[in-house]
Amino acid sequence: MPHKLNNYFLSRIHAVQKNFSNYQVDGIIFTGMNNIRYLSGFTGSDGVLVLSADAAWLLVDGRYVTQATREVQQISVLQYENKIQVIEQIVKQLCMKNIGFEASLVSLEMYNSFTRKLKKAKFIPLIDELRLLRAHKNKHEIFLMKKAAAIASGAIAMLAREIQPGWTEQETALQLEVTARRAGAEQIAFETIIASGENAALPHAKPTNRKIRKGDFVVIDFGIKYQGYCSDETCTFAIGELTGDQKNAYRAVLRAHDEAIAFIRAGVAAADVDALVRDILGEEYSRNFVHGTGHGVGLEVHEAPRLAPASQDVLTAGMVVTVEPGLYYPGLWGLRIEDTVLVKENSCEIITKMNKKLIIIK
Amino acid sequence: MPHKLNNYFLSRIHAVQKNFSNYQVDGIIFTGMNNIRYLSGFTGSDGVLVLSADAAWLLVDGRYVTQATREVQQISVLQYENKIQVIEQIVKQLCMKNIGFEASLVSLEMYNSFTRKLKKAKFIPLIDELRLLRAHKNKHEIFLMKKAAAIASGAIAMLAREIQPGWTEQETALQLEVTARRAGAEQIAFETIIASGENAALPHAKPTNRKIRKGDFVVIDFGIKYQGYCSDETCTFAIGELTGDQKNAYRAVLRAHDEAIAFIRAGVAAADVDALVRDILGEEYSRNFVHGTGHGVGLEVHEAPRLAPASQDVLTAGMVVTVEPGLYYPGLWGLRIEDTVLVKENSCEIITKMNKKLIIIK
Repeated sequence: MPHKLNNYFLSRIHAVQKNFSNYQVDGIIFTGMNNIRYLSGFTGSDGVLVLSADAAWLLVDGRYVTQATREVQQISVLQYENKIQVIEQIVKQLCMKNIGFEASLVSLEMYNSFTRKLKKAKFIPLIDELRLLRAHKNKHEIFLMKKAAAIASGAIAMLAREIQPGWTEQETALQLEVTARRAGAEQIAFETIIASGENAALPHAKPTNRKIRKGDFVVIDFGIKYQGYCSDETCTFAIGELTGDQKNAYRAVLRAHDEAIAFIRAGVAAADVDALVRDILGEEYSRNFVHGTGHGVGLEVHEAPRLAPASQDVLTAGMVVTVEPGLYYPGLWGLRIEDTVLVKENSCEIITKMNKKLIIIK
Repeated sequence: MPHKLNNYFLSRIHAVQKNFSNYQVDGIIFTGMNNIRYLSGFTGSDGVLVLSADAAWLLVDGRYVTQATREVQQISVLQYENKIQVIEQIVKQLCMKNIGFEASLVSLEMYNSFTRKLKKAKFIPLIDELRLLRAHKNKHEIFLMKKAAAIASGAIAMLAREIQPGWTEQETALQLEVTARRAGAEQIAFETIIASGENAALPHAKPTNRKIRKGDFVVIDFGIKYQGYCSDETCTFAIGELTGDQKNAYRAVLRAHDEAIAFIRAGVAAADVDALVRDILGEEYSRNFVHGTGHGVGLEVHEAPRLAPASQDVLTAGMVVTVEPGLYYPGLWGLRIEDTVLVKENSCEIITKMNKKLIIIK
């Protein structure tokens, strides 16, 4: 449905343009590729989107002219040799004087190039103004994210039936990724984490040649992309019998996970979700919960809002966020349980598909 | 060989510290993860490396403490809750007053946080000073890059034996990636390009469900990572008989590719390699060569130097760069031929393994 899609893009651009007076700008230069994709539909890896009050220009280099012309409609596409020069040209042509930009993405070097080339313009750093630009997902985005989640969950479910003691973490990751790709995953959304035994104590472990063995927790943190949109889900499998400590820890993390999800709805402060998780885990466990409770997901696997102690974000309907408590005991073991949920007015909907009851691999 | 590896890291840090007086700094804050990996060995996705004249601190959040402690030696690891606060603390502790930073990577937002928190310090933007930091590969890096190249080339060679008209681009990409992963690829270095027929006219095409058919050029631009290091290679296969125009174009691109490689050695200006390619292609073909001739490869698939018209870089021994002329005819077809080469004193060594003579798939 390309026409309908295109309407999304134009309405997003109009929504940004409507805020120009709030932001005290008469134009914005976008250089972040995810924001550019969100606003224009262009999926290339380099380019600039310039919005004035009533015009939109997509600036791309020679590699992307044909692609950009195919992908975007009702946005002018211009080819450049030199990015800074073409920005200068367009800014002058559109008579932009107060120019907003993504201050959390533009490097100091690029900012200096802007101000050097366009001495008469005033550059207005936009940070909070754009932080939640992509946070609320529309129906089409939710459709794509559910599709991504279903593919990834399906691959994890298949893995649960096949995985055996003796497999290495690397083999396991490969198996999972191949299954997901065959089921329609465009690519993985982030480096797959398969972390067993003592490696599971590393929240962001890379798969090694360690063989999975009896008594291990195996943390499987996996996500894929579908038409650009990411999924993110973590299951922790038990290989054979666990110790009492491990069982208790799993139960505690699952309870924290479940209660956080039961708590999430529009109007809830993101920091309160994090606080609830820490509260349920209790003081002792919480010392070994070494990261935030969750984050937004969309075109990026980590995007706004943040569910963490210092977060100022308030959850609102249409946000898609992860809930991922975990416990990590360096040198011993670790576990994490993660779902991605869609925030609704009075509840939230879990879009990842694996049941989070403990799966024991015999 | 972890001990030997560690020596690389320390000697790299010392090399940077030796330049402090040239850069007029008494410390540098690194936030770019590839630079941090290069200097410390830490492979996480977030963190800060602070160097003073005689100390090195790696600052990581709770997710990475265990991993960082495992991966780095003789560098102090400190856990933080708040990145800017911990930088402030370390900078004060190390009495750093003139602080260099990666101005091409640090966002304006982060720069403003630095200057707001550390009012007495002077922040010195380093751009050209750090541009070639990772450009010269040592023996160990070259070993890893050759290994990466061999795995990727092996997968392309296997594909050449298997690919058939009727396969979709997406199926072809999956087949290639699975073969490479089974052969030891850590992950792909960039989104695999499989572009057939008119899609091959897009230099950065994404694989679609278009079926490969007789008369197509199929552009296969593929790279993998091995212990963090990237490979990058492009083959263009012919599916059955080509037209005279296609054959002539392939011959022209291959000649430009071969002559550029014959020309590359230490002391050659990167822009001259690009000019040679355009000269050999001739005026008419050059209009359809819409990107630069090549780029450095290493921990990133695109890094310094650049082989392009406006490049100021001079090639020196130990650099690893691509040579990738191509021609693109929108709506019709395209082709590209790419090898990655190691620059030596009097020549260069091709490290990618596929022969670039035209492969015709019957």
